[in-house]
Amino acid sequence: MAVYTSVSADQIVDFIKDYDVGEMVSFKGIAEGTENSNYILKTTKASYILTLFEKRVQATDLPFFLGLMDHLAHKGISCATPVRDFQGEMLKSLCGRPAALISFLDGLSVSRPTADQCLMLGAEMARMHVAAADFSLKRENALSVAGWAELVQKCAPEANECVPGLKSLIEEEMNDLANGWPQDLPRGIIHADLFPDNVFFLKQNLSGLIDYYFACNDILAYDVAICLNAWCFEADGSFNITKARHLLHGYKGVREFSPQEIEALPTLCRGAALRFLLTRLYDWQNRVEGALVSPHDPRDFVKKLKFHQAVKNAAEYGLDL
Amino acid sequence: MAVYTSVSADQIVDFIKDYDVGEMVSFKGIAEGTENSNYILKTTKASYILTLFEKRVQATDLPFFLGLMDHLAHKGISCATPVRDFQGEMLKSLCGRPAALISFLDGLSVSRPTADQCLMLGAEMARMHVAAADFSLKRENALSVAGWAELVQKCAPEANECVPGLKSLIEEEMNDLANGWPQDLPRGIIHADLFPDNVFFLKQNLSGLIDYYFACNDILAYDVAICLNAWCFEADGSFNITKARHLLHGYKGVREFSPQEIEALPTLCRGAALRFLLTRLYDWQNRVEGALVSPHDPRDFVKKLKFHQAVKNAAEYGLDL
Repeated sequence: MAVYTSVSADQIVDFIKDYDVGEMVSFKGIAEGTENSNYILKTTKASYILTLFEKRVQATDLPFFLGLMDHLAHKGISCATPVRDFQGEMLKSLCGRPAALISFLDGLSVSRPTADQCLMLGAEMARMHVAAADFSLKRENALSVAGWAELVQKCAPEANECVPGLKSLIEEEMNDLANGWPQDLPRGIIHADLFPDNVFFLKQNLSGLIDYYFACNDILAYDVAICLNAWCFEADGSFNITKARHLLHGYKGVREFSPQEIEALPTLCRGAALRFLLTRLYDWQNRVEGALVSPHDPRDFVKKLKFHQAVKNAAEYGLDL
Repeated sequence: MAVYTSVSADQIVDFIKDYDVGEMVSFKGIAEGTENSNYILKTTKASYILTLFEKRVQATDLPFFLGLMDHLAHKGISCATPVRDFQGEMLKSLCGRPAALISFLDGLSVSRPTADQCLMLGAEMARMHVAAADFSLKRENALSVAGWAELVQKCAPEANECVPGLKSLIEEEMNDLANGWPQDLPRGIIHADLFPDNVFFLKQNLSGLIDYYFACNDILAYDVAICLNAWCFEADGSFNITKARHLLHGYKGVREFSPQEIEALPTLCRGAALRFLLTRLYDWQNRVEGALVSPHDPRDFVKKLKFHQAVKNAAEYGLDL
């Protein structure tokens, strides 16, 4: 939630000379994105987002991210799209950092999604999965089982300081998932971070998906599991099966689940809960006292993980078996 | 440089129902303003800035700030202007904080102003001083001589840790200024923080002044002295008399300096340098290690203060005596 690299107007005016985007009228640093520096540019033609990629993003991953957004946009998926310069390049450099100019996507993210919005999200995620199927680049998910195991090693020793009993909870869950993680489910490109703040709505319709900087190749239904975690729990921690049913039905209206995917759903949901529990726990343990950016509370995902541990089958998520 | 209060889209959609501004299309938190939380709102009609006033701003000062911007806009001074709601109110409340919707001002701030830009700034500042003369509200400058003395008391004991010799420099300067601060110069409303980041240019012209949240009643020429400090030193600390001459000539083309103002200019410049030296020193001494926001370096203003101490008369700022 901050701008890390400070860019002057002169530098941006110079930067956009390589693009057919008109002349600069205004620019402001925006307080979004935990990984990158972002600016809104207004020109005589349109508005854009200028993103400078900071060190937490691997520069070698950028052709994948930008290429994916470009690929999806050409397939009719509404998403922020990299603008090409006069030479056809999407990935450039500014202030010593990789940089890209991205189209500005109108829309508002919702803090409390409705069941209808869950339905639209499910359908759009499935469309995105289908549209990405023939994208040529690949990127491994650094935050899958092996990545979680590394985080468990780092975070478990002092986890009880955050929540009593958390150490054994994450160690045992890690053990279960390492042994029981599904191996033969349909794979493809997933967004991997489709929280409500990365989904825009405009006038009752979904207007686009943003922030593809965790996208990777993984189990498709794992993306669904992330969304069940991110969209279907209420503020008090209770699971809203109506929203889950809408999300799943939206998805399968576009891409049908296989019986194996349905069977694996509770395990995938546990994996998704553990993944966000671990990164939030890590950020919480490594937080800077007094800093303006306060980390997400890891305890929300402790509750979610425990919920999924008690789920017997996908019917409890509202799916007809 | 951050958003302190997090506002959801739903809350803003609700908030703007009181205004004739169309429907929400997008909103983003912006990383500007050290005192307040700011959002860019895009609606079906136009773009706006939504400002939530945080605790460092005195709520009792807000009618002065918003009223001044409104007054200046009606006098033809280009500045961000508070939007009135259907009841005619400019000052509202959101998320438990005082809030105002402000017109979005196009333009870019410059990091290295040219002499021509200094000329335009001088002229616009003078126009603003003249236009504000009949504004009815008053606000004392909390950061004038008495305020500096308080800061010297707080900061001097450990000032040498920042710069060797700084303790005696600020104590002696404070003593000189407390005794020699001019008493009978023309007074009025000043901006008091007209650094280059608060002045917008568009296509070679000055397009507006922003951030009136330090505005107050004080010596008019003290505003000029602040600008000489903020606009006329190069990155290497050298004073650029060409820029200063342009700034002063731009100003006096609109509002002539009295002989007393010209005589007091070196003292006013020392006061302005001490004021920013002290607040930067305070912020530096009270900085949070590891925080994303790093305080301005106080040492720039040590150099500026020493420069003004050596100035004999306003001719050294490029003014014909």
